[in-house]
Amino acid sequence: MTELSNPPRLDRFVPVDHAKVSFAGGFWQSWTETVRNITVPSQHRRLDEEGFLEVLNFKAPPAPLVRPIQPSGLSMQHFFDSDFGKWIEAASYTLKTHPNPELEEKIDAIVAQLAEGQMADGYLHSWFIRREPEKRWSNLRDLHEMYSMGHLLEGAVAYFEATGKRRFLDVMIRLVDHIDATFGREPGKLRGYDAHEEIEIALVKLYRVTGEVRFLKLADYFVTERGQQPSYYDEEARRRGDDPATYVFKTYAYSQAHMPVREQTEVVGHAVRAMYLFSAMSDLAVETGDLSLFDATKRLFANLTGRQLYVTGGLGPAHQNEGFTRAYDLPNLTAYAETCAAVGLAFWGHRMAQIALDSRYTDAVELVLFNGALSGIARDGEHYFYENVLESHGEHRRWKWHYCPCCPTNIARLLASLGSYFYTTRPGELAVHLYGENRAEISVGDVPVTLSQETRYPWDGDIALAVSPAAPASFKLHLRIPGWCNGAEVSVNGEVVTAQPVNGYLTIERLWQAGDVVRLHFAMPIERLHANPLVVEDAGRVALKRGPVVYCLEEVDNGLAPQRLALPADAELSARFAPDLLGGAVLIEGLGLASDAEGWGDTLYATQAPRQVPRKFTAIPYHLWANRDAGAMQVWLREVPRR
Amino acid sequence: MTELSNPPRLDRFVPVDHAKVSFAGGFWQSWTETVRNITVPSQHRRLDEEGFLEVLNFKAPPAPLVRPIQPSGLSMQHFFDSDFGKWIEAASYTLKTHPNPELEEKIDAIVAQLAEGQMADGYLHSWFIRREPEKRWSNLRDLHEMYSMGHLLEGAVAYFEATGKRRFLDVMIRLVDHIDATFGREPGKLRGYDAHEEIEIALVKLYRVTGEVRFLKLADYFVTERGQQPSYYDEEARRRGDDPATYVFKTYAYSQAHMPVREQTEVVGHAVRAMYLFSAMSDLAVETGDLSLFDATKRLFANLTGRQLYVTGGLGPAHQNEGFTRAYDLPNLTAYAETCAAVGLAFWGHRMAQIALDSRYTDAVELVLFNGALSGIARDGEHYFYENVLESHGEHRRWKWHYCPCCPTNIARLLASLGSYFYTTRPGELAVHLYGENRAEISVGDVPVTLSQETRYPWDGDIALAVSPAAPASFKLHLRIPGWCNGAEVSVNGEVVTAQPVNGYLTIERLWQAGDVVRLHFAMPIERLHANPLVVEDAGRVALKRGPVVYCLEEVDNGLAPQRLALPADAELSARFAPDLLGGAVLIEGLGLASDAEGWGDTLYATQAPRQVPRKFTAIPYHLWANRDAGAMQVWLREVPRR
Repeated sequence: MTELSNPPRLDRFVPVDHAKVSFAGGFWQSWTETVRNITVPSQHRRLDEEGFLEVLNFKAPPAPLVRPIQPSGLSMQHFFDSDFGKWIEAASYTLKTHPNPELEEKIDAIVAQLAEGQMADGYLHSWFIRREPEKRWSNLRDLHEMYSMGHLLEGAVAYFEATGKRRFLDVMIRLVDHIDATFGREPGKLRGYDAHEEIEIALVKLYRVTGEVRFLKLADYFVTERGQQPSYYDEEARRRGDDPATYVFKTYAYSQAHMPVREQTEVVGHAVRAMYLFSAMSDLAVETGDLSLFDATKRLFANLTGRQLYVTGGLGPAHQNEGFTRAYDLPNLTAYAETCAAVGLAFWGHRMAQIALDSRYTDAVELVLFNGALSGIARDGEHYFYENVLESHGEHRRWKWHYCPCCPTNIARLLASLGSYFYTTRPGELAVHLYGENRAEISVGDVPVTLSQETRYPWDGDIALAVSPAAPASFKLHLRIPGWCNGAEVSVNGEVVTAQPVNGYLTIERLWQAGDVVRLHFAMPIERLHANPLVVEDAGRVALKRGPVVYCLEEVDNGLAPQRLALPADAELSARFAPDLLGGAVLIEGLGLASDAEGWGDTLYATQAPRQVPRKFTAIPYHLWANRDAGAMQVWLREVPRR
Repeated sequence: MTELSNPPRLDRFVPVDHAKVSFAGGFWQSWTETVRNITVPSQHRRLDEEGFLEVLNFKAPPAPLVRPIQPSGLSMQHFFDSDFGKWIEAASYTLKTHPNPELEEKIDAIVAQLAEGQMADGYLHSWFIRREPEKRWSNLRDLHEMYSMGHLLEGAVAYFEATGKRRFLDVMIRLVDHIDATFGREPGKLRGYDAHEEIEIALVKLYRVTGEVRFLKLADYFVTERGQQPSYYDEEARRRGDDPATYVFKTYAYSQAHMPVREQTEVVGHAVRAMYLFSAMSDLAVETGDLSLFDATKRLFANLTGRQLYVTGGLGPAHQNEGFTRAYDLPNLTAYAETCAAVGLAFWGHRMAQIALDSRYTDAVELVLFNGALSGIARDGEHYFYENVLESHGEHRRWKWHYCPCCPTNIARLLASLGSYFYTTRPGELAVHLYGENRAEISVGDVPVTLSQETRYPWDGDIALAVSPAAPASFKLHLRIPGWCNGAEVSVNGEVVTAQPVNGYLTIERLWQAGDVVRLHFAMPIERLHANPLVVEDAGRVALKRGPVVYCLEEVDNGLAPQRLALPADAELSARFAPDLLGGAVLIEGLGLASDAEGWGDTLYATQAPRQVPRKFTAIPYHLWANRDAGAMQVWLREVPRR
């Protein structure tokens, strides 16, 4: 066990608070406004309409179940607390920049109910208190007990930071005290940990906001205990009178609990759980200085991005375990690629980059932000995808709400706190991770610096980054050179910077003064990506990407299912900004070959190959798909190779 | 309603009884021997081990459920009767040619239990008698009541025909009398029909074996009443206190009960049900002379084969409804293509050809026999596929028994009666539908004719058909010219026949005498098939077929997943007989292009296309796949087109 009484800390890069970064124009302006003005309010309405908030009505007898019990013994209703926890978190992020008394009132109402429902010993979980009090702490393997608590805790921390109100935080600290008294290695405590990671991240946040080391120790306990043998889940099952062999998911790899976390080398199991665990491990590595945790996450990150990641940043291909299967198994039509998992990858990559400036981590953050996470929310801000397929035959529709609505509040909290992903600092250093029009107020050490990006990024690769310290100051400016970019040019006040990036970051150290402008030019040709031949689904196929944006073909733009189109390897492609497309976006256009159905009539199979006729096609950014008429979609296009 | 007191009959072609056709060599010898010696006995063991036969233990209280109740309200156990009904049918076909007292004893034991369990009013259904007697006839929509009875009845007819023993038949006639007294348009009767068609086929068989018109009338009632409005299933649901709107499959198209059968033009819903309905409609058209039924089946057959049939003859692409979705929706990796549905297509096509000599019908029979139905049984005769995918990433395994084991006994009864699909006769005419080594004793009118085929078909296309009437006799010999064949040559005693086929049958009318030999040569080049461009799954792909046999690539023969191979449009292909491959089969070999993974390491995506390296490949008949090491498989190969 790590000794944490005086935790040695890594000298991490600390994220600039999202409230210090404003999007008054550019790509993210309308997205962040939509989340604030549409998504957050509409989600409260959904939670209310769908009976989620009813679970807080602790005084009344519980209403009949609105969701069935699953084969795993779990009902979605078991973790409704998590959904309003995440909603409070998202709402709090918007409150911090845009005070909204009405919204605050809604949160206060929830907090009041939680406070009232909390048990004398601090325990707080709406399902168990109201429905099965005798079963609390009896099934950490299946019932998401601390997962729900963790999300409430993250919500409480965010609400406290947004408003300064302590009530929710105090309620949650009482709960954490109870958890701390219940779990641990000390005699008389249960040596358990929740199968759905989440509380660990929340505990680190609580530690950071309170400075109380015991919260960090508890997070460290949960992470370190995970996967130790004999398995707590086996013991726990036997205590319930269950045979551990009947576990519905068959292996504790489902919960990354098949071996101690520091020994894990392959990303396995439920994808969201994995992302939350690895995020927590990264947080702990920072706060405890335990590099064995960082080493493990580095290996796991390489495994994920080298073998198990969709080109969109989606992850976890399989429906069955909502997660990973085996290396290179990346089916397109049946991709699960849950929005929450992509959001979780943003959490993880962001945390890795706080330890090590390496663009591989922030490339992943950018990848999901422009693709596999953003695809999870409609342009209107109130329709969603849970699964983010890379191909559709036309049957996919965004939905207003979901049987298991974990994704809407997850993408909301990511976008509502988006500013915090742009910049990190440590004394004498300022790192720029993401590009996109914004203005930020940052302290580098004790020097206030105004940073602003003027750019149409990601639609083009030119960025004017104005660096304006309150007074001339010397510090290192680390600029991420995106991994996708093969031609980066950087100048300061017109003077070309010739230094080379290290681990994907170009560092400029100088005496900065007001009026300094760094200009970045990232060449942004249309790229044709091919997949590793071991990804058999993508063999003979090509994906179009421009800068950080992955493209797809939709039937609605092309008048036929894109599966009928093939892209000659030497076809010319051009990019054009279309101001009227869903808020404006760069399209890719070109000439493909379409299989001509004329003359086939009722012939299903013939020895004659279909005639291939040239046909103009239009590709749109993947994240914008399924916002217009339903139809077929494809990311990986058939390629007609050069012979 | 059709008036059937003196049914006008179409002058149908009557199948030659399977017992008159023997396979002493050639392709089908080992398959039919395996079914007789391995499949039938092993299925009885499975039925016993898995608790199916326990349901006949009418005297004991019912054992606990071994299968859960489904969302539809149905347990697989509701129709266990159907499984031993089908098993008895298959076993009886083998008994007719190969007496086996031990097997007969097993059947007699089942019959004795059924007879004992039958209720005083004739009702017989193990589930309802033992578990829910009050619910009998309350839910024809969901509970397969007459489906199970129909399979018992088919078993009873087959057992009677094989052994002359009447007991089972008499039990079933008492049941049919009860059904007849319960259902119909007459006042006081229920105007219902079972949602899973099957009893209709069985009733026509009963009519044929007894000559009693009331059985035919009952079948006609069930077929004609189907889909009439208002829906019986709505009324029945309301009688149960259920809201018809909560029907789990949402539309009665699931059971082909959305409109009267004569008005149906598209094949919809559950695929096996559809095949059984259309088979019954064909039977009724024959026996009643009602051409409106034949016209409907003609339209439906054209719809199926023109828009909804896999190249293997598989049908019903979707798991959700075990059936059809929309025209041209033929996914490969997720193909449901249930073995039972392909078997049902053999039933249907066989019946259509009894009305109209048209090779489209018998081509479909041949297609499933060599491909999409035969793939449902392993070469060892005791492992099975329920779903017959056209592509696998390696996760598919044949199973020993299934949760819903309808397919094993279905393929068994088809293969055990295979001989009956070869020849049909009517006075002065003899039609040859299938090719393959066999010897048959046939009566053409009152002339006994010995027919024998000497051939390696389907491995080559040369057939010597010896036609030996007991005495010289003049009759028409109709020879099917397969639709896949572009170069057929036919001669009689060395003299070329120049007549042209009509609807795919070449007719030779002459005075036949002992020693006459018809030689057929069907050119059998390796064909590259392309799919209609509206089948988007197969765009840019090619399937290999030789004669009636569809090929696939398996990983085990090729040392890599076939998805990594592409077939140049001009690649040379050759066929070779491999005597040691699973009993001997013709392979296809050629030179493909493989995507080379060397140098990719942990790179998932790159702008550089993978190197394509020439690589020899081997394709095997699709029906033989998954009989060796597990691995990836593919029918539709990527094609590298000519530019």
